[in-house]
Amino acid sequence: MALGTDYPHQDCSLARALEVVGERWSLLIIRDAFYGVSRFNDFLVHLDLPKAVLTARLNSLVEAQVLAKIAYQQSPPRYKYVLTESGRSLWPVVYGLAQWGFNHVSGGMPKMLFSHTPCGSRLDAFGGCPACGGPVPPEAVTMQQGPGADEPMRQDPVSQALVQARPLLTPLAVDRPSRRSDSRRAG
Amino acid sequence: MALGTDYPHQDCSLARALEVVGERWSLLIIRDAFYGVSRFNDFLVHLDLPKAVLTARLNSLVEAQVLAKIAYQQSPPRYKYVLTESGRSLWPVVYGLAQWGFNHVSGGMPKMLFSHTPCGSRLDAFGGCPACGGPVPPEAVTMQQGPGADEPMRQDPVSQALVQARPLLTPLAVDRPSRRSDSRRAG
Repeated sequence: MALGTDYPHQDCSLARALEVVGERWSLLIIRDAFYGVSRFNDFLVHLDLPKAVLTARLNSLVEAQVLAKIAYQQSPPRYKYVLTESGRSLWPVVYGLAQWGFNHVSGGMPKMLFSHTPCGSRLDAFGGCPACGGPVPPEAVTMQQGPGADEPMRQDPVSQALVQARPLLTPLAVDRPSRRSDSRRAG
Repeated sequence: MALGTDYPHQDCSLARALEVVGERWSLLIIRDAFYGVSRFNDFLVHLDLPKAVLTARLNSLVEAQVLAKIAYQQSPPRYKYVLTESGRSLWPVVYGLAQWGFNHVSGGMPKMLFSHTPCGSRLDAFGGCPACGGPVPPEAVTMQQGPGADEPMRQDPVSQALVQARPLLTPLAVDRPSRRSDSRRAG
Protein backbone atom coordinates (compact mmCIF):
# COMPACT_ATOMS: atom_id res chain seq x y z
CA MET A 1 0.00 0.00 0.00
CA ALA A 2 1.43 3.35 -1.00
CA LEU A 3 1.57 5.74 1.92
CA GLY A 4 2.75 9.33 2.09
CA THR A 5 5.62 10.49 4.18
CA ASP A 6 3.95 13.22 6.19
CA TYR A 7 1.22 13.38 8.82
CA PRO A 8 -0.63 16.61 7.94
CA HIS A 9 -3.51 16.00 10.35
CA GLN A 10 -1.37 15.13 13.37
CA ASP A 11 -0.75 18.21 15.47
CA CYS A 12 2.20 16.84 17.42
CA SER A 13 5.94 17.36 17.42
CA LEU A 14 6.48 13.58 17.26
CA ALA A 15 4.70 13.59 13.90
CA ARG A 16 6.92 16.49 12.76
CA ALA A 17 10.02 14.54 13.83
CA LEU A 18 8.87 11.44 11.96
CA GLU A 19 8.29 13.51 8.83
CA VAL A 20 12.02 14.30 8.93
CA VAL A 21 13.64 11.10 10.20
CA GLY A 22 10.85 8.49 9.95
CA GLU A 23 11.42 7.35 6.40
CA ARG A 24 12.99 3.98 5.82
CA TRP A 25 16.83 4.08 6.14
CA SER A 26 16.97 7.65 7.49
CA LEU A 27 17.81 6.70 11.08
CA LEU A 28 20.39 4.15 9.93
CA ILE A 29 22.08 6.87 7.84
CA ILE A 30 22.06 9.11 10.91
CA ARG A 31 23.49 6.26 13.02
CA ASP A 32 26.31 5.85 10.50
CA ALA A 33 26.99 9.59 10.66
CA PHE A 34 27.40 9.26 14.45
CA TYR A 35 29.88 6.46 13.72
CA GLY A 36 31.91 8.89 11.60
CA VAL A 37 30.73 7.78 8.15
CA SER A 38 30.54 10.85 5.91
CA ARG A 39 31.12 9.88 2.26
CA PHE A 40 28.46 8.70 -0.15
CA ASN A 41 30.28 5.50 -1.01
CA ASP A 42 30.96 4.66 2.61
CA PHE A 43 27.26 4.95 3.46
CA LEU A 44 26.56 2.88 0.35
CA VAL A 45 28.81 -0.07 1.16
CA HIS A 46 27.97 -0.10 4.85
CA LEU A 47 24.20 0.23 4.50
CA ASP A 48 23.93 -1.85 1.34
CA LEU A 49 20.87 0.07 0.14
CA PRO A 50 19.85 1.16 -3.37
CA LYS A 51 21.90 4.12 -4.58
CA ALA A 52 18.81 6.11 -5.54
CA VAL A 53 17.39 5.68 -2.04
CA LEU A 54 20.62 6.83 -0.42
CA THR A 55 20.72 9.90 -2.68
CA ALA A 56 17.11 10.76 -1.86
CA ARG A 57 17.57 10.29 1.89
CA LEU A 58 20.80 12.30 2.03
CA ASN A 59 19.17 15.12 0.09
CA SER A 60 16.16 15.08 2.43
CA LEU A 61 18.33 15.12 5.53
CA VAL A 62 20.42 17.99 4.12
CA GLU A 63 17.25 19.90 3.27
CA ALA A 64 15.99 19.33 6.81
CA GLN A 65 19.34 20.55 8.18
CA VAL A 66 20.01 17.27 9.95
CA LEU A 67 23.11 16.78 7.79
CA ALA A 68 25.35 19.39 6.20
CA LYS A 69 26.76 18.69 2.73
CA ILE A 70 30.32 20.00 2.64
CA ALA A 71 32.69 20.08 -0.32
CA TYR A 72 36.03 18.66 0.75
CA GLN A 73 37.65 18.69 -2.69
CA GLN A 74 37.03 20.94 -5.69
CA SER A 75 38.44 19.06 -8.67
CA PRO A 76 36.86 16.63 -9.09
CA PRO A 77 34.10 17.84 -6.73
CA ARG A 78 33.64 15.62 -3.71
CA TYR A 79 31.32 16.03 -0.77
CA LYS A 80 30.92 14.73 2.70
CA TYR A 81 27.81 14.63 4.86
CA VAL A 82 28.17 15.48 8.55
CA LEU A 83 25.66 15.87 11.34
CA THR A 84 24.59 19.41 12.16
CA GLU A 85 23.89 20.46 15.75
CA SER A 86 20.26 19.51 15.10
CA GLY A 87 21.37 16.11 13.82
CA ARG A 88 23.62 15.51 16.81
CA SER A 89 20.59 16.21 19.03
CA LEU A 90 19.13 12.95 17.72
CA TRP A 91 21.66 10.92 19.71
CA PRO A 92 19.20 10.08 22.54
CA VAL A 93 16.75 8.77 19.94
CA VAL A 94 19.36 6.68 18.10
CA TYR A 95 20.78 5.32 21.35
CA GLY A 96 17.32 4.71 22.82
CA LEU A 97 16.14 2.76 19.77
CA ALA A 98 19.34 0.69 19.69
CA GLN A 99 19.00 -0.11 23.39
CA TRP A 100 15.37 -1.05 22.99
CA GLY A 101 16.17 -3.19 19.96
CA PHE A 102 18.83 -5.00 21.92
CA ASN A 103 16.79 -5.46 25.09
CA HIS A 104 13.49 -6.34 23.49
CA VAL A 105 14.12 -7.67 19.97
CA SER A 106 17.57 -9.00 19.22
CA GLY A 107 18.79 -9.93 22.70
CA GLY A 108 21.85 -12.10 23.21
CA MET A 109 25.25 -10.46 23.53
CA PRO A 110 25.61 -6.81 22.49
CA LYS A 111 27.44 -6.23 19.23
CA MET A 112 28.33 -2.65 20.02
CA LEU A 113 29.09 -1.02 23.36
CA PHE A 114 28.98 2.68 24.18
CA SER A 115 30.92 4.24 27.02
CA HIS A 116 31.61 7.66 28.52
CA THR A 117 34.98 8.61 27.02
CA PRO A 118 36.48 10.48 30.02
CA CYS A 119 35.79 7.72 32.58
CA GLY A 120 35.25 4.59 30.50
CA SER A 121 31.93 3.65 32.14
CA ARG A 122 29.35 1.98 29.93
CA LEU A 123 26.32 4.17 29.31
CA ASP A 124 23.20 3.20 31.21
CA ALA A 125 19.84 2.36 29.63
CA PHE A 126 19.00 6.05 29.31
CA GLY A 127 22.29 7.13 27.77
CA GLY A 128 23.67 8.57 30.99
CA CYS A 129 26.94 7.84 32.77
CA PRO A 130 26.36 5.80 35.94
CA ALA A 131 29.71 6.95 37.40
CA CYS A 132 29.61 10.67 36.61
CA GLY A 133 25.81 11.12 36.61
CA GLY A 134 23.70 12.89 34.05
CA PRO A 135 23.26 12.44 30.31
CA VAL A 136 26.26 12.10 28.03
CA PRO A 137 26.43 14.05 24.75
CA PRO A 138 27.58 12.06 21.69
CA GLU A 139 30.83 14.04 21.60
CA ALA A 140 31.80 12.26 24.84
CA VAL A 141 30.83 8.73 23.79
CA THR A 142 33.26 6.01 22.67
CA MET A 143 31.96 3.09 20.62
CA GLN A 144 33.56 -0.34 20.57
CA GLN A 145 32.58 -3.80 19.49
CA GLY A 146 30.87 -5.93 22.10
CA PRO A 147 31.06 -9.66 22.80
CA GLY A 148 28.26 -10.33 20.31
CA ALA A 149 30.41 -9.09 17.42
CA ASP A 150 32.42 -12.32 17.21
CA GLU A 151 30.72 -13.38 14.01
CA PRO A 152 30.21 -10.21 12.03
CA MET A 153 27.51 -10.24 9.39
CA ARG A 154 29.28 -7.68 7.23
CA GLN A 155 32.80 -7.60 5.76
CA ASP A 156 32.66 -4.28 3.91
CA PRO A 157 35.52 -1.79 4.52
CA VAL A 158 33.42 0.45 6.78
CA SER A 159 32.40 -2.45 9.01
CA GLN A 160 36.05 -3.47 9.20
CA ALA A 161 37.14 0.05 10.09
CA LEU A 162 34.54 0.16 12.88
CA VAL A 163 36.15 -2.82 14.64
CA GLN A 164 38.50 -0.46 16.46
CA ALA A 165 37.24 1.42 19.52
CA ARG A 166 36.74 5.07 18.57
CA PRO A 167 34.93 8.20 19.72
CA LEU A 168 31.64 8.94 17.99
CA LEU A 169 31.68 11.67 15.33
CA THR A 170 35.34 11.01 14.49
CA PRO A 171 35.66 11.13 10.69
CA LEU A 172 36.12 7.66 9.28
CA ALA A 173 38.70 7.33 6.51
CA VAL A 174 38.26 4.21 4.41
CA ASP A 175 40.76 3.40 1.69
CA ARG A 176 39.15 2.06 -1.38
CA PRO A 177 40.60 0.95 -4.71
CA SER A 178 38.57 3.06 -7.13
CA ARG A 179 38.71 6.78 -6.54
CA ARG A 180 37.01 7.36 -9.87
CA SER A 181 33.73 5.76 -8.87
CA ASP A 182 33.85 7.64 -5.58
CA SER A 183 33.92 11.04 -7.27
CA ARG A 184 31.18 10.06 -9.70
CA ARG A 185 28.86 9.00 -6.95
CA ALA A 186 29.65 11.67 -4.43
CA GLY A 187 27.66 14.49 -6.02
CA MET B 1 9.77 3.36 -4.84
CA ALA B 2 8.66 0.18 -3.10
CA LEU B 3 10.92 -0.67 -0.18
CA GLY B 4 10.79 -3.59 2.22
CA THR B 5 10.27 -3.23 5.92
CA ASP B 6 13.30 -5.08 7.22
CA TYR B 7 17.07 -4.60 7.10
CA PRO B 8 18.39 -8.14 6.72
CA HIS B 9 21.99 -7.07 6.06
CA GLN B 10 22.26 -4.63 8.95
CA ASP B 11 23.73 -6.36 11.97
CA CYS B 12 22.64 -3.79 14.53
CA SER B 13 20.00 -3.57 17.23
CA LEU B 14 18.86 -0.21 15.87
CA ALA B 15 17.93 -1.98 12.62
CA ARG B 16 16.06 -4.65 14.63
CA ALA B 17 14.17 -1.92 16.51
CA LEU B 18 13.23 -0.18 13.28
CA GLU B 19 11.94 -3.45 11.85
CA VAL B 20 9.43 -3.46 14.71
CA VAL B 21 8.53 0.20 15.19
CA GLY B 22 9.93 1.92 12.10
CA GLU B 23 6.99 1.51 9.77
CA ARG B 24 4.87 4.52 9.00
CA TRP B 25 2.30 5.23 11.76
CA SER B 26 3.71 2.69 14.24
CA LEU B 27 5.30 5.21 16.60
CA LEU B 28 2.20 7.44 16.49
CA ILE B 29 0.07 4.43 17.48
CA ILE B 30 2.51 3.76 20.33
CA ARG B 31 2.36 7.44 21.34
CA ASP B 32 -1.43 7.22 21.49
CA ALA B 33 -1.17 4.09 23.65
CA PHE B 34 0.97 6.08 26.10
CA TYR B 35 -1.82 8.70 26.08
CA GLY B 36 -4.27 5.98 27.15
CA VAL B 37 -5.89 5.27 23.78
CA SER B 38 -6.69 1.56 23.59
CA ARG B 39 -9.70 0.94 21.32
CA PHE B 40 -9.54 0.50 17.57
CA ASN B 41 -12.01 3.29 16.87
CA ASP B 42 -10.26 5.70 19.19
CA PHE B 43 -6.94 5.16 17.38
CA LEU B 44 -8.85 5.54 14.11
CA VAL B 45 -10.49 8.88 14.85
CA HIS B 46 -7.42 10.35 16.55
CA LEU B 47 -4.84 9.24 13.99
CA ASP B 48 -7.11 9.69 10.96
CA LEU B 49 -5.33 6.93 9.03
CA PRO B 50 -6.71 4.27 6.66
CA LYS B 51 -8.49 1.51 8.54
CA ALA B 52 -6.51 -1.22 6.76
CA VAL B 53 -3.24 0.41 7.78
CA LEU B 54 -4.33 0.65 11.42
CA THR B 55 -5.36 -3.00 11.39
CA ALA B 56 -2.02 -4.06 9.90
CA ARG B 57 0.03 -1.94 12.32
CA LEU B 58 -1.90 -3.10 15.40
CA ASN B 59 -1.48 -6.73 14.33
CA SER B 60 2.26 -6.23 13.76
CA LEU B 61 2.73 -4.54 17.13
CA VAL B 62 0.77 -7.32 18.87
CA GLU B 63 2.86 -9.94 17.09
CA ALA B 64 6.03 -8.14 18.18
CA GLN B 65 4.69 -8.04 21.78
CA VAL B 66 4.80 -4.24 21.88
CA LEU B 67 1.01 -4.20 22.37
CA ALA B 68 -1.21 -6.79 24.01
CA LYS B 69 -4.67 -7.42 22.51
CA ILE B 70 -7.07 -7.99 25.34
CA ALA B 71 -10.77 -8.91 25.13
CA TYR B 72 -12.74 -6.62 27.40
CA GLN B 73 -16.19 -7.82 26.36
CA GLN B 74 -17.34 -11.20 25.07
CA SER B 75 -20.67 -10.57 23.36
CA PRO B 76 -20.20 -8.85 21.03
CA PRO B 77 -16.43 -9.42 21.19
CA ARG B 78 -14.48 -6.25 21.78
CA TYR B 79 -10.76 -5.77 22.21
CA LYS B 80 -8.40 -3.19 23.53
CA TYR B 81 -4.71 -2.73 22.77
CA VAL B 82 -2.40 -1.83 25.64
CA LEU B 83 1.34 -1.42 25.88
CA THR B 84 3.28 -4.39 27.20
CA GLU B 85 6.34 -3.92 29.39
CA SER B 86 8.40 -3.99 26.19
CA GLY B 87 6.16 -1.33 24.66
CA ARG B 88 6.39 0.89 27.74
CA SER B 89 10.18 0.69 27.41
CA LEU B 90 9.81 2.76 24.24
CA TRP B 91 8.92 5.86 26.26
CA PRO B 92 12.44 7.39 26.02
CA VAL B 93 12.28 7.01 22.24
CA VAL B 94 8.79 8.52 21.93
CA TYR B 95 9.67 11.37 24.29
CA GLY B 96 13.06 11.93 22.64
CA LEU B 97 11.57 12.14 19.15
CA ALA B 98 8.81 14.50 20.33
CA GLN B 99 11.37 16.74 22.05
CA TRP B 100 13.58 16.76 18.99
CA GLY B 101 10.61 17.50 16.74
CA PHE B 102 9.63 20.43 18.92
CA ASN B 103 13.15 21.82 19.33
CA HIS B 104 14.35 21.34 15.76
CA VAL B 105 11.32 21.12 13.46
CA SER B 106 8.05 22.56 14.71
CA GLY B 107 9.31 25.11 17.25
CA GLY B 108 7.04 27.80 18.68
CA MET B 109 5.08 27.08 21.84
CA PRO B 110 4.77 23.47 23.00
CA LYS B 111 1.37 21.89 22.44
CA MET B 112 1.86 19.20 25.05
CA LEU B 113 3.81 19.31 28.31
CA PHE B 114 5.08 16.35 30.31
CA SER B 115 5.82 16.54 34.02
CA HIS B 116 6.92 14.27 36.87
CA THR B 117 3.64 13.38 38.58
CA PRO B 118 4.86 13.29 42.22
CA CYS B 119 6.55 16.70 42.16
CA GLY B 120 5.01 18.48 39.18
CA SER B 121 8.37 19.43 37.59
CA ARG B 122 8.50 19.51 33.81
CA LEU B 123 10.68 16.76 32.37
CA ASP B 124 14.05 17.89 31.04
CA ALA B 125 15.30 17.37 27.50
CA PHE B 126 16.36 13.81 28.34
CA GLY B 127 13.10 12.78 30.02
CA GLY B 128 14.49 13.13 33.54
CA CYS B 129 13.15 15.11 36.49
CA PRO B 130 15.32 18.19 37.18
CA ALA B 131 14.05 18.38 40.77
CA CYS B 132 14.26 14.72 41.84
CA GLY B 133 17.10 13.66 39.51
CA GLY B 134 17.24 10.61 37.31
CA PRO B 135 15.03 9.33 34.51
CA VAL B 136 11.26 9.18 34.94
CA PRO B 137 9.32 6.09 33.85
CA PRO B 138 6.11 6.74 31.89
CA GLU B 139 4.02 5.52 34.82
CA ALA B 140 5.16 8.66 36.71
CA VAL B 141 4.54 11.16 33.90
CA THR B 142 1.56 13.51 33.64
CA MET B 143 0.63 14.99 30.28
CA GLN B 144 -1.16 18.28 29.84
CA GLN B 145 -1.78 20.72 27.04
CA GLY B 146 0.81 23.43 26.61
CA PRO B 147 0.49 27.08 25.57
CA GLY B 148 0.76 26.11 21.89
CA ALA B 149 -2.49 24.14 22.07
CA ASP B 150 -4.67 27.27 21.92
CA GLU B 151 -5.77 26.56 18.38
CA PRO B 152 -6.12 22.79 18.17
CA MET B 153 -5.89 21.21 14.73
CA ARG B 154 -8.16 18.32 15.65
CA GLN B 155 -11.67 18.25 17.11
CA ASP B 156 -12.20 14.48 17.30
CA PRO B 157 -13.46 13.02 20.61
CA VAL B 158 -10.05 11.65 21.57
CA SER B 159 -8.32 15.00 21.05
CA GLN B 160 -11.06 16.63 23.13
CA ALA B 161 -10.64 14.07 25.91
CA LEU B 162 -6.87 14.72 25.96
CA VAL B 163 -7.42 18.42 26.82
CA GLN B 164 -7.50 17.51 30.53
CA ALA B 165 -4.23 16.91 32.38
CA ARG B 166 -3.86 13.19 33.01
CA PRO B 167 -1.22 10.60 33.86
CA LEU B 168 0.17 8.63 30.95
CA LEU B 169 -1.14 5.08 30.50
CA THR B 170 -4.48 5.94 32.11
CA PRO B 171 -7.21 4.27 30.04
CA LEU B 172 -9.09 6.83 28.00
CA ALA B 173 -12.85 6.39 27.88
CA VAL B 174 -14.48 8.16 24.96
CA ASP B 175 -18.24 8.16 24.58
CA ARG B 176 -19.38 7.76 21.03
CA PRO B 177 -22.84 7.53 19.47
CA SER B 178 -22.51 4.28 17.53
CA ARG B 179 -21.55 1.26 19.58
CA ARG B 180 -22.42 -0.99 16.65
CA SER B 181 -19.65 0.28 14.41
CA ASP B 182 -17.24 0.04 17.34
CA SER B 183 -17.82 -3.67 17.80
CA ARG B 184 -17.62 -4.34 14.08
CA ARG B 185 -14.29 -2.62 13.74
CA ALA B 186 -12.72 -3.74 16.96
CA GLY B 187 -11.85 -7.27 15.86
